[in-house]
Amino acid sequence: MLRDRLNQLRKRGALVHNITNYVTVNDVANVILACGGSPIMSDDTEDAPDITSICGGLNINIGTLNHNTIPAMFASGKRANELGHKVLLDPVGAGASSLRTKTALDLMDQVHFDVIRGNISEIRTLAGGSGRTQGVDANALDAVTEDTLDEGVAFAKSFANSCGSIVAVTGAIDLVSDGGKCYVIRNGRPEMGRITGTGCQLSGMTTAYLVANQDDMLEATAASVCAMGLAGEIGWANMQPGDGNSTYRNRIIDAICNMTGEQLEKGAKYEIR
Amino acid sequence: MLRDRLNQLRKRGALVHNITNYVTVNDVANVILACGGSPIMSDDTEDAPDITSICGGLNINIGTLNHNTIPAMFASGKRANELGHKVLLDPVGAGASSLRTKTALDLMDQVHFDVIRGNISEIRTLAGGSGRTQGVDANALDAVTEDTLDEGVAFAKSFANSCGSIVAVTGAIDLVSDGGKCYVIRNGRPEMGRITGTGCQLSGMTTAYLVANQDDMLEATAASVCAMGLAGEIGWANMQPGDGNSTYRNRIIDAICNMTGEQLEKGAKYEIR
Amino acid sequence: MLRDRLNQLRKRGALVHNITNYVTVNDVANVILACGGSPIMSDDTEDAPDITSICGGLNINIGTLNHNTIPAMFASGKRANELGHKVLLDPVGAGASSLRTKTALDLMDQVHFDVIRGNISEIRTLAGGSGRTQGVDANALDAVTEDTLDEGVAFAKSFANSCGSIVAVTGAIDLVSDGGKCYVIRNGRPEMGRITGTGCQLSGMTTAYLVANQDDMLEATAASVCAMGLAGEIGWANMQPGDGNSTYRNRIIDAICNMTGEQLEKGAKYEIR
Repeated sequence: MLRDRLNQLRKRGALVHNITNYVTVNDVANVILACGGSPIMSDDTEDAPDITSICGGLNINIGTLNHNTIPAMFASGKRANELGHKVLLDPVGAGASSLRTKTALDLMDQVHFDVIRGNISEIRTLAGGSGRTQGVDANALDAVTEDTLDEGVAFAKSFANSCGSIVAVTGAIDLVSDGGKCYVIRNGRPEMGRITGTGCQLSGMTTAYLVANQDDMLEATAASVCAMGLAGEIGWANMQPGDGNSTYRNRIIDAICNMTGEQLEKGAKYEIR
Repeated sequence: MLRDRLNQLRKRGALVHNITNYVTVNDVANVILACGGSPIMSDDTEDAPDITSICGGLNINIGTLNHNTIPAMFASGKRANELGHKVLLDPVGAGASSLRTKTALDLMDQVHFDVIRGNISEIRTLAGGSGRTQGVDANALDAVTEDTLDEGVAFAKSFANSCGSIVAVTGAIDLVSDGGKCYVIRNGRPEMGRITGTGCQLSGMTTAYLVANQDDMLEATAASVCAMGLAGEIGWANMQPGDGNSTYRNRIIDAICNMTGEQLEKGAKYEIR
Repeated sequence: MLRDRLNQLRKRGALVHNITNYVTVNDVANVILACGGSPIMSDDTEDAPDITSICGGLNINIGTLNHNTIPAMFASGKRANELGHKVLLDPVGAGASSLRTKTALDLMDQVHFDVIRGNISEIRTLAGGSGRTQGVDANALDAVTEDTLDEGVAFAKSFANSCGSIVAVTGAIDLVSDGGKCYVIRNGRPEMGRITGTGCQLSGMTTAYLVANQDDMLEATAASVCAMGLAGEIGWANMQPGDGNSTYRNRIIDAICNMTGEQLEKGAKYEIR
């Protein structure tokens, strides 16, 4: 039950090391705190593996990668693997530049990721397919819609099988698959696209869910994706006249902060294929 | 008409590459989304020119420049020029340190900027004049006031002519000139000075306006400056007892998010000299 | 009187150079503005000492230290000492990695700090004692409680004496000592722990208090610590149904922004031992 995933996170806590971009890092930290985890950021090669060692999970987000942080991603990723810690990859902008694509692929080659989470264009790029990444947002041509859902589910399953990770493809419809099953999730609001970093926040939060729910990481990932979308719905319902995307950002994190297991269970909209 | 500038941005969108400081970067991203654009951040030399290539505009802000990001500013600036993309310079703190002054001047030497936006002390520094930059805020002695307005307008025109860029000098009174005409803009609230980064946000937003309005970049810049000041007024009008600068920050971005072309047209307070 | 410390800061202003982590930097800037100071951030070795020179205070926070920013911390710290500027150290995560511990200790060796502010685990680590830093949060076993208060006060005094700095140990109960006296402060709310960066914000604000109150830095530090805790109480009292940690963050900075000297004087809960 999804509720157990959130309840377990609140009860156990989860210390999450984030190597993430400086654009959305504050929101990532606050959303990890909101869901019941504790964040720590460190991205220098000499510091990061030590920090990885004392955490339960590692969230690698390549959003503003550079030549100082890339080696830290590899070093921390390997350390986390050695220690059996949970590791997530958020390949922000894979397909938008050769450095991003190469870094994401090299990371996948040298580090085992428990979860890879991105938009459809980024994930298609990693799959060696027809990703048409446009900046850091998914290309409309790649979008998973009701019309292309069967194809999307097949793609998510296939990619999960080929890389041995749980794959979370997020967009208007979210797909979470371990290769066998695929959660098709219909929570969320289109207005979430007007806020920077809801994807980054989801990656940080998902890492916390993984740390606290190692007994069922597929369900944990699905629970986190549902929680983010549901928070987008709750936050939107709380908007007042004059509110815009900056207040909406706060409302979403607030909703994560106040969410109960029951609320998640009741509000989650998903089917399993 | 200013309204057309906003309407065109909402309709066409604008993908903006930002090499900007890590202090205000999240607000810059959210304000670009709020006005109708899409932000992407990248500041590593190997990554940045690729990102520049897929965007329509480039916003270079030297607020927390360092030896890794400075080369990326030059490389991306040149790439943007080659591709005919719009480029804006925000010389944060020029005059406050020799590295900032030198970097801004060298950038102006090697990159053509469509717009240069800063406070009066920064712009005076770039003009080789009597800038008295105090930290990142303008020195009161430099301020453009009703008393010194004629001199300020003449300065803005002269500097715009000498550097071949549209110049936006922002403060209590804002000046936007292409060397021929000068918009004198009286929107805004003094309380905006109690929020970090309204200048950085304006630079990001202006780059989006430029991308979507290449047919009249002077008016596009003036529209963006009016929109920011007007958002400061609307945001202030929405303040409740107990609200302070953190909520005001959200209210301003919210106002950008909800602003219509009509509202901008009606609320803009400017004259052309 | 604490009120004088705030009133003096509002009257005199304070330009504060921050070398700080990119996680909470925006909130640090906004809180410095909220209390009456002006922030500037710079962390490149070639830029930072110049910026230090034009400021009145320097806030060094090692939260996301790296090989580019560490030399800037040393260079700026030494420059500030030469110029007689106020300097504060926030040893984020000391004890959590060897680089953090070493950097903090080396900084203490080569730079004189007017104030060192951290949680109890970090401060115990610097004292060469039994710090059990867990990520960036204090370990519960180290916590200063009513039961361990006598020991905590003795420790704070002893450490202040040994390092020649004012020491601020913040947690459920805050201790501020110059070796002779020790303020025991009971402001604040436990919910402040669900927001990232209230400690970083306090360090930035305290540096501003120091700059404007060089005649009594111990009282200035205590006033800043009381103000942060009181803002946490005021912010909490202003929370509405549905609000969570993201809104609470805004409410706290708002409360700093609106706080008067009288309010601080009346709301501060402290004893001097």
